[in-house]
Amino acid sequence: MPQNLEQTLSLLARTPATLNALLRDLPELWTFRNEGGDSWTAFDVVGHLIHGERTDWIPRVRRILEFGETRAFEPFDRLAQKRESQGKTLPELLDEFARLRAENLQELRAMSLSPSDLEKRGLHPALGVVTLSELLATWAVHDLTHFHQLSRILAYQYREAVGPWSKFLGVLQCNGHSS
Amino acid sequence: MPQNLEQTLSLLARTPATLNALLRDLPELWTFRNEGGDSWTAFDVVGHLIHGERTDWIPRVRRILEFGETRAFEPFDRLAQKRESQGKTLPELLDEFARLRAENLQELRAMSLSPSDLEKRGLHPALGVVTLSELLATWAVHDLTHFHQLSRILAYQYREAVGPWSKFLGVLQCNGHSS
Repeated sequence: MPQNLEQTLSLLARTPATLNALLRDLPELWTFRNEGGDSWTAFDVVGHLIHGERTDWIPRVRRILEFGETRAFEPFDRLAQKRESQGKTLPELLDEFARLRAENLQELRAMSLSPSDLEKRGLHPALGVVTLSELLATWAVHDLTHFHQLSRILAYQYREAVGPWSKFLGVLQCNGHSS
Repeated sequence: MPQNLEQTLSLLARTPATLNALLRDLPELWTFRNEGGDSWTAFDVVGHLIHGERTDWIPRVRRILEFGETRAFEPFDRLAQKRESQGKTLPELLDEFARLRAENLQELRAMSLSPSDLEKRGLHPALGVVTLSELLATWAVHDLTHFHQLSRILAYQYREAVGPWSKFLGVLQCNGHSS
């Protein structure tokens, strides 16, 4: 299936409102608890998405267009939000994410990428050669991976409250599929 | 962790807006494709949630309050939406779900359930004895199971478009955890 830029944008544009509908003003039982150990809370996930807007997606698009395969992407810091979210509230993070995502999509649209631009190649520090098309598809699926994680983090808080129903609830069987 | 009714209601009340933000007017590439075979589309999932509002959650609450363990719940028809959603559009289903959920939460609030009501027991046709508290917690986690599924169905449509990034995207490793 060829990736269609408009279809990708339609999904990326919805994420701030979806997070807002699910998380804003939700009790802290849901938003400030994790799945044990050093796993993430919903608050951490929103901080991680913010860091991606700042340092990952659009900077990598620019690097492909400017340098092609001759200069690898900067590695993505998956723990930056632990530092950057300190002292902020969840509504502040949701607002910040919405603003950054809107700015980034505006910048992406202004690039007026052509089908041949989408085939341009860049260099991922771990994965090797990737295309701009793959980068943009990954941006959208990365949002979906974190919806998937959010549903799991929230469900985890009720893993005992559901009693015997737990075996019928797929989200409670999910281990996160981390590689 | 004891289940807190207000916390459960806060999550249940958000689901229509969350589905709306994610799915309304999303291109059919995302909403009318499944994960292969007889798996569900996002359209099917919303139909399933509607059927639950009509036949499952509140009817089971009423049965516990009226009959306790003396009369088992009706089994839930997990395929009813294939029949009931025919001829409807996704925006129509989203509107219908939002209306039914609002009515059901209004009815639940009007019951003014006490802590001792929440401990009342009912009879599940497969699971045996369950409590009203467990039923309400399951209603909320059932929503989350379907967010989890929706993120997976949408991501599946881009499983090839992401190229080598697929191994970093947990949602693409998820097999649904069906029992």
